[in-house]
Amino acid sequence: MSATASDIALAVSTVIFALRPDDQGGDESPAPGVWLPLVRRIREPHLGRWALPGGSVVVDESLEAAARRTLAETTQLEPTYLEQLYAFGDVDRSPDRRMVSIVYWALVRPDEAEKVSLGENVRWFAADDLPELAFDHNLIVDYALWRLRTKMEYSRIAHAFLGPMFTLAELRSVHEAVLQRPLDPANFRRQMESSGAIVPTDQVVTGGRHRPPRLYRYNSDIELVDVGPLTLRRSS
Amino acid sequence: MSATASDIALAVSTVIFALRPDDQGGDESPAPGVWLPLVRRIREPHLGRWALPGGSVVVDESLEAAARRTLAETTQLEPTYLEQLYAFGDVDRSPDRRMVSIVYWALVRPDEAEKVSLGENVRWFAADDLPELAFDHNLIVDYALWRLRTKMEYSRIAHAFLGPMFTLAELRSVHEAVLQRPLDPANFRRQMESSGAIVPTDQVVTGGRHRPPRLYRYNSDIELVDVGPLTLRRSS
Repeated sequence: MSATASDIALAVSTVIFALRPDDQGGDESPAPGVWLPLVRRIREPHLGRWALPGGSVVVDESLEAAARRTLAETTQLEPTYLEQLYAFGDVDRSPDRRMVSIVYWALVRPDEAEKVSLGENVRWFAADDLPELAFDHNLIVDYALWRLRTKMEYSRIAHAFLGPMFTLAELRSVHEAVLQRPLDPANFRRQMESSGAIVPTDQVVTGGRHRPPRLYRYNSDIELVDVGPLTLRRSS
Repeated sequence: MSATASDIALAVSTVIFALRPDDQGGDESPAPGVWLPLVRRIREPHLGRWALPGGSVVVDESLEAAARRTLAETTQLEPTYLEQLYAFGDVDRSPDRRMVSIVYWALVRPDEAEKVSLGENVRWFAADDLPELAFDHNLIVDYALWRLRTKMEYSRIAHAFLGPMFTLAELRSVHEAVLQRPLDPANFRRQMESSGAIVPTDQVVTGGRHRPPRLYRYNSDIELVDVGPLTLRRSS
């Protein structure tokens, strides 16, 4: 690890995933899906194309701090769940100079997603129906979707979309939105309960229904397959 | 993702994990464990300390190409299994300048591990008994060990240590070495067979034993939780 000057620019980009019931634009697609906000580029290269929010890393900020700063600057979002996803560094991924992007992903609850500051240059897109994006950002979103789908099978990642307590129907709708297919309610309940990943609380959904659904939480006795030894360093 | 000059140096480092039956130095530790080769630094900063093999990224090579080049230069290793692990970018991780390291990991079979070119400045160490390393490399190894242990529970990662066919006893010894605890053979066999992750072949271990053990392979019908959409880009 020698300390030479670098001809390589270092940037961060963030894939923000939220589940949304429809495209809020009048289209008839009632099934929830995975959506992400994109930012229209206002300079070259790729002027006018949509891109992931991001920007250069400043010399005195950590990678996560750079991701948080650029997210706040472009979308006003301060996500609870923000994790490093992958470093993209192909030689030709930017047309004007060598650029390595450390990509983070944020999984946000509906109340967080509402805080995204929309405008002419910030808009939500359905993750599996994107236009041609700037740089290799289509590849990055595809990779993030694939990680989301595989990771949901062995970790508590759906948690990030839901908050601390949820009904089985809410958890199933997250899985359905991410996997893009309907799941049988009885099979889903059996799988979840036998996995030990979730435990029933003594609380139910309030609101005076005849058989109010029970609220569940994730089982914190099972180790999260997420951050491990880096947990204590995440604020750096 | 703006294109500005960078004050941040970009490096790659690689954690090479192999399973070894003992420390080959005469110590009495017959149980296999996880070992890695380290390289002694021959310049400042941290002159004389042991470090992960690595080096700066050249402007016209991809991140993986940089990892492969620096591995070949320091250890002569050309690993089959080489994956990006995590980008380490804390502000203070190098004493003289800002340095971001994209860390790869290589999981190598015994025949590959034998090709590591040892010498005064390249030596194998037990992964859970390291001296104080250069930079944040102790943290990096801890993180890699944690990922290895968690990932083995949901992917075919043990495969990388074994080659295409293996006995149940060999597979169990990999799990025991990584998890650092003995596993009950009958339970292990039941878990593996019921998981569907491995399938018996019609071959047995040759060599004239009375009840030669059957060889297994991983079930390629189950999708690997490893690279996903990046598979086709790995050679870039």
